[in-house]
Amino acid sequence: MKKIVLRDDEMPTQWYNVVSDLPGGLRPPLDPETKQPMGPEKLAAVFPMGLLEQEMSDQRFIDIPEPVSEVLKIWRPSPLVRATKLEQALGTKAKIFFKNESVSPVGSHKPNSAVAQAYYNKREGVKRLTTETGAGQWGSALSLATNTFGLECVVYMVRVSFEQKPYRKSVMQTFGAKVIASPSSETNSGRAIRAKFPDTPGSLGMAISEALEDAASREDTKYALGSVLNHVVLHQSIIGLEAKKQMKIAGEFPDVVIGCCGGGSNFAGLAVPFVPDYLDGKKIRFVGTEPASCPSMTAGALAYDFGDTAQTTPLLYMHTLGHDFIPPGIHAGGLRYHGMAPIVSALIRDKIVEPMRLHQLECFEAGVLFARTEGIIPAPETCHAIRGAIIEAMREPDKPQTILFNLSGHGLIDMAAYDRYFAGELHDYDYPEEEIAASLATLPTV
Amino acid sequence: MKKIVLRDDEMPTQWYNVVSDLPGGLRPPLDPETKQPMGPEKLAAVFPMGLLEQEMSDQRFIDIPEPVSEVLKIWRPSPLVRATKLEQALGTKAKIFFKNESVSPVGSHKPNSAVAQAYYNKREGVKRLTTETGAGQWGSALSLATNTFGLECVVYMVRVSFEQKPYRKSVMQTFGAKVIASPSSETNSGRAIRAKFPDTPGSLGMAISEALEDAASREDTKYALGSVLNHVVLHQSIIGLEAKKQMKIAGEFPDVVIGCCGGGSNFAGLAVPFVPDYLDGKKIRFVGTEPASCPSMTAGALAYDFGDTAQTTPLLYMHTLGHDFIPPGIHAGGLRYHGMAPIVSALIRDKIVEPMRLHQLECFEAGVLFARTEGIIPAPETCHAIRGAIIEAMREPDKPQTILFNLSGHGLIDMAAYDRYFAGELHDYDYPEEEIAASLATLPTV
Repeated sequence: MKKIVLRDDEMPTQWYNVVSDLPGGLRPPLDPETKQPMGPEKLAAVFPMGLLEQEMSDQRFIDIPEPVSEVLKIWRPSPLVRATKLEQALGTKAKIFFKNESVSPVGSHKPNSAVAQAYYNKREGVKRLTTETGAGQWGSALSLATNTFGLECVVYMVRVSFEQKPYRKSVMQTFGAKVIASPSSETNSGRAIRAKFPDTPGSLGMAISEALEDAASREDTKYALGSVLNHVVLHQSIIGLEAKKQMKIAGEFPDVVIGCCGGGSNFAGLAVPFVPDYLDGKKIRFVGTEPASCPSMTAGALAYDFGDTAQTTPLLYMHTLGHDFIPPGIHAGGLRYHGMAPIVSALIRDKIVEPMRLHQLECFEAGVLFARTEGIIPAPETCHAIRGAIIEAMREPDKPQTILFNLSGHGLIDMAAYDRYFAGELHDYDYPEEEIAASLATLPTV
Repeated sequence: MKKIVLRDDEMPTQWYNVVSDLPGGLRPPLDPETKQPMGPEKLAAVFPMGLLEQEMSDQRFIDIPEPVSEVLKIWRPSPLVRATKLEQALGTKAKIFFKNESVSPVGSHKPNSAVAQAYYNKREGVKRLTTETGAGQWGSALSLATNTFGLECVVYMVRVSFEQKPYRKSVMQTFGAKVIASPSSETNSGRAIRAKFPDTPGSLGMAISEALEDAASREDTKYALGSVLNHVVLHQSIIGLEAKKQMKIAGEFPDVVIGCCGGGSNFAGLAVPFVPDYLDGKKIRFVGTEPASCPSMTAGALAYDFGDTAQTTPLLYMHTLGHDFIPPGIHAGGLRYHGMAPIVSALIRDKIVEPMRLHQLECFEAGVLFARTEGIIPAPETCHAIRGAIIEAMREPDKPQTILFNLSGHGLIDMAAYDRYFAGELHDYDYPEEEIAASLATLPTV
């Protein structure tokens, strides 16, 4: 079979919460003022209780509400596809499978969490959601979801993406969202950043600050984050839960599971449902790939840090390059974040996840090879996962291993990046050693 | 169930050829010089024999070759989805189903035929394919397909689309195709048209002339057409064959089948497999929608005409506005063709298909409603099918009927059209009465 599909009634009815199984546990978020664990009451200003309960939960499985399932089923379960033509082009004996999350209406895995987040906010009477977006994938997904449940949506979009990706903006506007280039002059934090760095391309950290400030300043508004947090990883676990069922139907089990890591949610979503198998003794490797220009997993510290530039979030225990770190404006906007999901960080600490650092050009090269073999043009972020899969498949090309990676999104709305790649206008950024050292020096003391 | 999916091994293994069942038969293509039926030998300069055999065939079912199936299975079978939220928003008792062809790697139904055409050309030793593209969907599809089978590809893209849809160009280039704005200065016909109409936005008819001339002038090159011809309708019949299986699983049968019509292939692909049911006495209506600015079915003549502007094709017996007709530059580029598939034209003649004429703004309005209910932003062409479905559903909103339409493509690469719609920059074109009359006066006498 080229592809394994599941019926609607085979879609998982529960999410899997890997927090319940983490060998070393998870350190709690801290209140930046008191340095004490932060309870849900303080976070309730920006998140609904339904999501905070999930954020703090150590329950192993959590039911997916029916209205969430109903929307997910527009495109889920997503197909599991075998990349036979890529295998042939590589000349590898590895079997390469990918979970095709690009079939969602906005072309990525992001709606998996957006739909759930919009639902819980709606259920608690929230009228308006704010968020940030890098490449625009998350903003598109939240716009789709808020529109479905009848909420207003305001998206702070990293300025460099706002300018380079007009179609993403149009997608969000079609779903009725308001899109603002970040840093903007609409928030205190935005104005402060612009005063300090007038020419900044923006960053996810900055946009988060603005979206949080907007949400905290209005009674009817809450905030939604597209990655990093535990409840986002929970919602994305549906990817791996489906993939497990599909691999079983295919009569396979992965030796290696691969995803690209910005905040960590698509990689974790695919990987975490396989963690119990690993803990049960199955030989399975988990490889998270990241860009050399923003290498939080391979060059960051594992420490408490703010999730945003303006230091307004709780302190999260995670791999971080420091909240002041401003990554170069590479096109894989979704990977330009200084931190990494606490869950992924804990899995690295526990030696379960192996991070892999990649350069931009080798990733586009892999993406073009994938497009020209499997027919799907991957998002620039996703090219990092494909590069990782190719590296693993070619490490020992005669070894008959099974590789599973997450095709987190297609690139049809990111074609400007491919244009620049073909025109030779993109180059590799070196590991930004000095900037990272400077930024790490500003980590809060705990 | 929200959605019915089929497994790979449930994908049809044969195409359905409606020519075998057409009550009034099909009139053959004529040689424009002799006005006598044109045999395959003369067409062999631009088409491979494998496709010409299908073009002339009256065999009821034709096997899908394994290498074609293998590529189609990257995304096929495509889902059948119930538009529950659209139904609720309309307040209709009609059940509305759509076949989601937007899940293909280039976002439309076009690869269904492109993959087959590339395969037959490859099998006969062709090295290079030329084609035309309007909105860019067909060009993207053929680029994907030629790349898969290792052929070169040259796409003549209607100038107005070339300028307004840079991402489409990038998609084709990523698959290794050469894209040329049409009319170009690279062909005799292109140069002649430019001399006569220096400011023309181009048209499919012009682009076809250029692609044909290019193919005819080179030994290693043949030509591929994305719609209109019998073999294209044959390849697209997989849509309706799958939909029939899926409707059966859903326990439904359509009362109305709807698609938008440019050259007719996506509509016919969905509709023709239901024609035998109609002929067996089932009550079923077939509605083809077209833009008021290019109304070949509702305002054209049923006559022999050239398929292209430069009068180089055989004469096809079809609904036509005249090969000189240049439709206004509306954004639904895929619907800007002066003719209509002979098969669809015959089905209109036989009173099986009902054409429906629609204006641009009502179609975008329908598309936005669909996006905001079902979460998928449709291509501007597809908005015409959705408008048709809404009209049918609201004709008698309390009637519990079943409507099936073809979601032929998503709009993620056509967002500039939505931007212009939201900005109020689009307007409705009136029925271009004088231009049509003038163009019809130039029909060849047979």
